[in-house]
Amino acid sequence: METDKLKPKIVVIGGGTGVFTVLSGLRNYPVDLTAIISMSDDGGSTGALREEFGILPPGDVRRALVALAHTDNRLLSDLFNYRFEEGQLKGHAFGNIMLTALERITGNFESALDEAGRILNVQGRVIPVTLDNIRLCAELEDGQIIKGETNIDIPKHDSGLKIKRVWLSPKAKGNKRAIEIIRTANLIVLGPGDLFTSVIPNLLVEGIPEAIKKSSGKKAYVVSSMTKAGETSGFSAKNFLDAIETHLGKNILDYVIVNNKYPSPSRLKEYDAEGKEMVKAGELPHRPTPIFGDFIRKSGFVRHDPEKLAKVLVSLI
Amino acid sequence: METDKLKPKIVVIGGGTGVFTVLSGLRNYPVDLTAIISMSDDGGSTGALREEFGILPPGDVRRALVALAHTDNRLLSDLFNYRFEEGQLKGHAFGNIMLTALERITGNFESALDEAGRILNVQGRVIPVTLDNIRLCAELEDGQIIKGETNIDIPKHDSGLKIKRVWLSPKAKGNKRAIEIIRTANLIVLGPGDLFTSVIPNLLVEGIPEAIKKSSGKKAYVVSSMTKAGETSGFSAKNFLDAIETHLGKNILDYVIVNNKYPSPSRLKEYDAEGKEMVKAGELPHRPTPIFGDFIRKSGFVRHDPEKLAKVLVSLI
Repeated sequence: METDKLKPKIVVIGGGTGVFTVLSGLRNYPVDLTAIISMSDDGGSTGALREEFGILPPGDVRRALVALAHTDNRLLSDLFNYRFEEGQLKGHAFGNIMLTALERITGNFESALDEAGRILNVQGRVIPVTLDNIRLCAELEDGQIIKGETNIDIPKHDSGLKIKRVWLSPKAKGNKRAIEIIRTANLIVLGPGDLFTSVIPNLLVEGIPEAIKKSSGKKAYVVSSMTKAGETSGFSAKNFLDAIETHLGKNILDYVIVNNKYPSPSRLKEYDAEGKEMVKAGELPHRPTPIFGDFIRKSGFVRHDPEKLAKVLVSLI
Repeated sequence: METDKLKPKIVVIGGGTGVFTVLSGLRNYPVDLTAIISMSDDGGSTGALREEFGILPPGDVRRALVALAHTDNRLLSDLFNYRFEEGQLKGHAFGNIMLTALERITGNFESALDEAGRILNVQGRVIPVTLDNIRLCAELEDGQIIKGETNIDIPKHDSGLKIKRVWLSPKAKGNKRAIEIIRTANLIVLGPGDLFTSVIPNLLVEGIPEAIKKSSGKKAYVVSSMTKAGETSGFSAKNFLDAIETHLGKNILDYVIVNNKYPSPSRLKEYDAEGKEMVKAGELPHRPTPIFGDFIRKSGFVRHDPEKLAKVLVSLI
């Protein structure tokens, strides 16, 4: 798990499926990759395992491990992502169950990730942003307080109400290993991913924004391609950037990467029901340097394209 | 998973923990090892997964895979055998869950075993005796019929009553791969293991006793070291051998391996409550050739010693 001293070091900070996208693109380049993952997920299989075993959330690290797994291990990756459909195990991702067992055997979540990384023969490493057991909380503009990432993520609240602020409960200390790797990185990538539930939770951890500031590496934020109901409804790229800078500080980021390719209305149709729409690129200030471009997939899900994203990121080193 | 043409081929036929013992001893010798495993287990984690997923029983093949796993993969073996102690997953062995997921991904149980063998880097192979979904049934001497291996194994019936006969329901066809490997083996080892619930269930499968008979390899039966309440209470080595020959035929076996070392009464004390006692070696006919000796462990559980057992078995080739 040593970093490779000859390759440029890229650290991706996020959570959810966005991390999978950026890692699976970057893994094809000769770079030393680290994924630093938020620890506030509490839904589905992950939530059940957190509750029953008191472990850190396995879902997002599982996705990151699969993104970095050796391509010869296709079956192993399929196995790791396999979700049971029957009986008692229904809904559980096999990889989550494996990380839970490894946590019990090794005695801690970080060692479990290292061992899973060895079994999957990953290129790079996956590191929890904090080793503290925390929940994400949000205050809405009407003063209502929402506890738990799932409740914010899949809004049970009125999705017309904006999120006023988010915080971790209890306060969390940054994982030392994460802080060290951030400080020596050549490039730090924030996102893409859900703004308040995947990216910002990392910036709420004590020591993480400071480490990013102190790092001599380049810093880039990848704005989401679509908004999310109840979280970023109506947000422009500028709104996304402002929220990040509120938590990270001004004049820290070097680049902001913004998709300005809008797919055909027919491809967007199915997103209407979810209240999702394309993020408007709009106008952005000169600092951080905006990089506009076509960064989304040609077909299928309207998400960032791993290759396009990796290409622009690697060009920043 | 090809057999190694230069090494003598040993096939171990059984189920339960006995197979683990004999395999973990033999794996230290330069032999080509195959474990053929009975498919009638229906208890605990295995039983729940059979019921919910309709898969073949994973428990005994899991133990055999661990016995053959590469010793450098200590953590992987520990993981495979890890049993959850909390929540929804309580009682499940991780390896059973993994075999279930692999069965779903590959589409069949045999491929699942092959893939698990690759992941664990096993030396040799583990093969189900049949691919049919079957239950073990028993008739007691009073005419009572017991369905399911667990109900026979951990007797819910009056353990004073002897088992009159056992059969599989429905009838099962021998796995072609098992039959082929038996026919070309240099040594076939039956047992050790529970007589009616681990060893004989293999001999109830259509084609298996025939394959053993037709094989030009040497055939040995390892008599259990202890009796089992409700199954072999009061059985001598001769009783064990007779039961095997009832299902396999007379003059088929070349050797019968019998422990005649009895540990101190204090070491046997804890077995009293379970109604277990040492199998009396007693007198045996000249054919099959009886091999008496000290085959049990020096301390701890009163079970066959892997090294002692392997040594005598390898000497038969």
